[in-house]
Amino acid sequence: MSKVVFGVDVGGTTVKLGCFDTEGQLLDKWEIPTRTEDKGVNIIGDIAGSILVKLAKDDIDKKDVVGIGIGVPGPVKSDGTVIVAVNLGWKDINVNTELEELTGIKVKTSNDANVAALGEMWRGGGQGYSNVVAVTLGTGVGGGIIVDGKIVNGATGAGGEIGHIHLEDNETEACGCKGHGCLEQYASATGVVRLAKKKLADSSKDSVLREGEVTAKDVWDAVKAGDELAIEVANIYGEYLGKGLAAVADVVNPEIFVIGGGVSKAGRVVIEYMEPYFDKYVFPGAKGAKFALAKLGNDAGIYGAAFLVLDK
Amino acid sequence: MSKVVFGVDVGGTTVKLGCFDTEGQLLDKWEIPTRTEDKGVNIIGDIAGSILVKLAKDDIDKKDVVGIGIGVPGPVKSDGTVIVAVNLGWKDINVNTELEELTGIKVKTSNDANVAALGEMWRGGGQGYSNVVAVTLGTGVGGGIIVDGKIVNGATGAGGEIGHIHLEDNETEACGCKGHGCLEQYASATGVVRLAKKKLADSSKDSVLREGEVTAKDVWDAVKAGDELAIEVANIYGEYLGKGLAAVADVVNPEIFVIGGGVSKAGRVVIEYMEPYFDKYVFPGAKGAKFALAKLGNDAGIYGAAFLVLDK
Repeated sequence: MSKVVFGVDVGGTTVKLGCFDTEGQLLDKWEIPTRTEDKGVNIIGDIAGSILVKLAKDDIDKKDVVGIGIGVPGPVKSDGTVIVAVNLGWKDINVNTELEELTGIKVKTSNDANVAALGEMWRGGGQGYSNVVAVTLGTGVGGGIIVDGKIVNGATGAGGEIGHIHLEDNETEACGCKGHGCLEQYASATGVVRLAKKKLADSSKDSVLREGEVTAKDVWDAVKAGDELAIEVANIYGEYLGKGLAAVADVVNPEIFVIGGGVSKAGRVVIEYMEPYFDKYVFPGAKGAKFALAKLGNDAGIYGAAFLVLDK
Repeated sequence: MSKVVFGVDVGGTTVKLGCFDTEGQLLDKWEIPTRTEDKGVNIIGDIAGSILVKLAKDDIDKKDVVGIGIGVPGPVKSDGTVIVAVNLGWKDINVNTELEELTGIKVKTSNDANVAALGEMWRGGGQGYSNVVAVTLGTGVGGGIIVDGKIVNGATGAGGEIGHIHLEDNETEACGCKGHGCLEQYASATGVVRLAKKKLADSSKDSVLREGEVTAKDVWDAVKAGDELAIEVANIYGEYLGKGLAAVADVVNPEIFVIGGGVSKAGRVVIEYMEPYFDKYVFPGAKGAKFALAKLGNDAGIYGAAFLVLDK
């Protein structure tokens, strides 16, 4: 029997599990609910049970399982201790020890955002590269910095918090981090909408965006349809994002940026409006960075978790 | 006989050489001229000769030499090939191969700025830390990013080019990189002077800086002497530098910044005027970064070069 590896992505509502071969081929995936009650005391047992059932069902010998990788929503120490995971109710839990005890299989744990970045590097938009910055343009803006194939966790687990790079001195509204003028305030899904509303208020130009409630998708759909006002918004959006990613490139000079999250569902148009500004603001020696869309969507976490185990 | 290691820092005018024990104790250091004529064809031979003479003079057996580390002013590939080093006249030279052939000793080569950063981490201001950002506030502003004890070279050798993070949209003068509003335009030695001149022109306030030509040292001396206008300049300087280093911390979240270069000779006052702005602009989770002054001065290169060899 050929070897397999499990990748587990623990979210606040569901736990995603994937069974992979050692080349990164997804053989099977499924979900179980995340039982967050009682400080999430059942979660690790549920994961162990689900994996053991899978082994029995498919007649997989434990000695053919290379390991279990896990991504957890919170800072994780290198020994597998989760300091705190608010969405799970966890505090000071060593996932490696507990899950190894229940399964008899080697376990490796890391932060979920970082794990998703590894997934995109391994089998997603960053495949073939080892110096990658994964950018998530979602409700907020997150990042995963990979240098020579390794995640940059940072001294206090705040490596890759690129959404909070300060870009705008004239911002009056506060960011979720309490700062003013963070990249996230412009480049997130809510950021696009905010920029659009501001433009609608400041301009008298006609636009499809004047009808009803505006979403990030509406803005990009209007851009693609050639709506002039929406295109002005896309340029403002692109300048903020390009300026922010240029700062990232000045620090770690990646081969490629992999752009994911809700906003990226609009497609390469997001990159097209950003790239000229990236080129304008980045150090000339770092100008050659590539830009790709994330490919794995919600599966990035299970891929990256599997990679955690296979990584030497 | 206990083991020794050589650290070599190749500059455009002189080559600095150091002989260290394996704990990083500097046993001896000396310099030889850099013969840049004829495309620098003599430089490697001169280094080999100087080291072999030292071995003979001190009766050191070759088998007791762990290796020779070299820092070179230009981008260096991982196999020791210097792609180009303008100040030396070099182009496509494999330093490892050539110097190993001449000495029979293992050689490791890297970029000089990165090597100096490693030196400060190993035995300088960053001693005891492995996630370090070395910042050089000199004629320009340079950086060396160290993550888990390893230098971040970047995809095209532009890792740590933090002097070119864009900070100011309203800048009319161009930076050396042709950009406008780079950190270097404010935080370098020439940057301080530029800020001071602008403030002198815009303000009618009395100041010692109004007498004669202003240097970076004059500005900081005036700050220490309580000159009001100079203190205003220091606050502007501190805000730019703090904002730039905050962006760096949002990306790699270091344990410590080690501040070196000409401007840092003013002492901790530079850090004191910067730190409140760093705290203002950085992601809260990365706020705990420490700040230290570089300690090794011009010897950082030989220390770091020696470390290159000893690093596993």
